[in-house]
Amino acid sequence: MKRKLLLISNSTNAGEEYLGWPRKHIVDFMSDTGIKKLLFIPWAGVNLSDEGLNASFDIYEERVNNVFRLLGMEIYSIHKEKDPVKAVNEAKAIAVGGGNTFHLVYMMHKTGIINAVRQRIFDGMPYMGWSAGANVACPTLRTTNDMPIIQPASFECFDVIPFQINPHYLDANPQGHGGETREQRINELLAINREVIVVGLREATALWIEKGKIDLVGTRPMRLFNYGHEPVEFQPGDDIGFLFKSLS
Amino acid sequence: MKRKLLLISNSTNAGEEYLGWPRKHIVDFMSDTGIKKLLFIPWAGVNLSDEGLNASFDIYEERVNNVFRLLGMEIYSIHKEKDPVKAVNEAKAIAVGGGNTFHLVYMMHKTGIINAVRQRIFDGMPYMGWSAGANVACPTLRTTNDMPIIQPASFECFDVIPFQINPHYLDANPQGHGGETREQRINELLAINREVIVVGLREATALWIEKGKIDLVGTRPMRLFNYGHEPVEFQPGDDIGFLFKSLS
Repeated sequence: MKRKLLLISNSTNAGEEYLGWPRKHIVDFMSDTGIKKLLFIPWAGVNLSDEGLNASFDIYEERVNNVFRLLGMEIYSIHKEKDPVKAVNEAKAIAVGGGNTFHLVYMMHKTGIINAVRQRIFDGMPYMGWSAGANVACPTLRTTNDMPIIQPASFECFDVIPFQINPHYLDANPQGHGGETREQRINELLAINREVIVVGLREATALWIEKGKIDLVGTRPMRLFNYGHEPVEFQPGDDIGFLFKSLS
Repeated sequence: MKRKLLLISNSTNAGEEYLGWPRKHIVDFMSDTGIKKLLFIPWAGVNLSDEGLNASFDIYEERVNNVFRLLGMEIYSIHKEKDPVKAVNEAKAIAVGGGNTFHLVYMMHKTGIINAVRQRIFDGMPYMGWSAGANVACPTLRTTNDMPIIQPASFECFDVIPFQINPHYLDANPQGHGGETREQRINELLAINREVIVVGLREATALWIEKGKIDLVGTRPMRLFNYGHEPVEFQPGDDIGFLFKSLS
C-alpha cells in the first residue's frame, strides 16, 4: 500500500500559536520525501476576510505559508490555479486546511478534483490535512462537526481510508448544556450506518499512515466507535492496524 | 398572517425531566385551539432503540405521549400512518420532535410531506417543534448543530419563517477546546450567505409566532446575527417584529 497520509485532528490547541503543536509531525512526515513545495487547498477557510472568498483564501495561504516557511517548506494555493485538476496531477504533495467541511466538499465536487486526488494518493503522493482536511480523507463528510453552510453536490469525499474520523473529538458538553454530546452524535450516525467505523480523534493527536501501517501520533488516546460494541480507547503506540484490515 | 408556531430551542434543560421546561408554554400555545390530538413527527429520533428505526420511533412516540397526556393532550405518530401526506392533510396540529436534523429532513423529502405541511401552516394549522423540529420550520437546515449522518435529497425545509434558527445556541466552547465557537460557525455561514438572518436561540427559550406577531418566550435573551453588523441581543418582551417584516 503506497498511501502516505498525515491526518491531524486540529491545527491549533487553545491558547497556542497557529499550527503550533503539529509542526514537528509535519516536518517528520515530509523529511524522507525531499519535497519542499506542497499544493494547498484553502476552500474550508471561508471567512478570513470581509472581502469575499478569494481574499479569504489569499489570507489563508499566507497564514499557512508563514508556518511552512519556518519549517523549510512552502505551499501554493489551488485557488490561484486555472486548472485545479491539472494542479492536483502535477502536485508533489497536498496539504488541506481546516475550516468549514461543507464548503470544502462543495468546492471539491464543483472543481471535480476528487478522483484526481484519490488516484494521486493511491500512487503514493503525500497528503496531509488538519480538521476538515483530515475529515475529507474519509469516505464521506458524515462525521464532521461543522455547520452545513452550503449544500455540496454529494457528501462523498476522497475516500482513501476505510473509516471515518471525527476531528476535535470532545468528551463532554459545557456544563449545564442539554445538547447531544459528541458520543451521542456518533451513536446516532452508527444507528443508521451500522457498517461504519468512527475514530474520535482528540485535539493534539493525528493519524500517520505509511507503508501499510497506521499510528496514532500525540499524547492522548483515540476513541473507536463500532456499532454494537462499547467504545474502545487506544493509546499512541497501540496496534491499530485492524483499521486497515480491509485494505491490500 | 395565519401562521401559529411554537419553535422551541430544546426539549430538556440539563438535569431536568424530559420536555420539562416547555410544558407550560405548550399548554398556553394550545389552550385557545380546543385541539387535543396532534400528529407527531419522530424522524429525528434515530437511536432510542437497538431494534431499528421503527422501534426507535415507537419509543419516541410513547415518551412524548407520556408528557402530553399529563397536559391533557395526546399525540399519534406519522411513522404508523400508511400515507404520510394524507396524515398531514388531516392533522389538526403537528408537533415535531428533536434529535438528528439530517435524518428528519431526509425523511421529510423521502415521504414528500414538505409542501403539505407548509400549506397547512399557511392555512393556520398550529405547529410546534423543539430543537430539530424548530430548525425545520426555517428555509433550510443550514443552521443545525447536528452531525450529517445521512444525505437528504436537499437541505430545503418547511420554510414557514423568513430567517434561520440556531437551536441550543451556546456562547462558549468547553474550556481548553480549540474548535470553532457557535458564533464562529454562524459567521462562516453568513460569509457565504450574506442575505440570511440567524437567530441564536439559547436553551430554555422559544419563539411564539401568532397573528402576525413574534415573541421570545423564556428568561434568556436571543442573539441575532446579520451579515456586516455586530450581533445584537434581544430580551423577552423586546419588539422583534422586524424578523417578519418581509411577510404579509
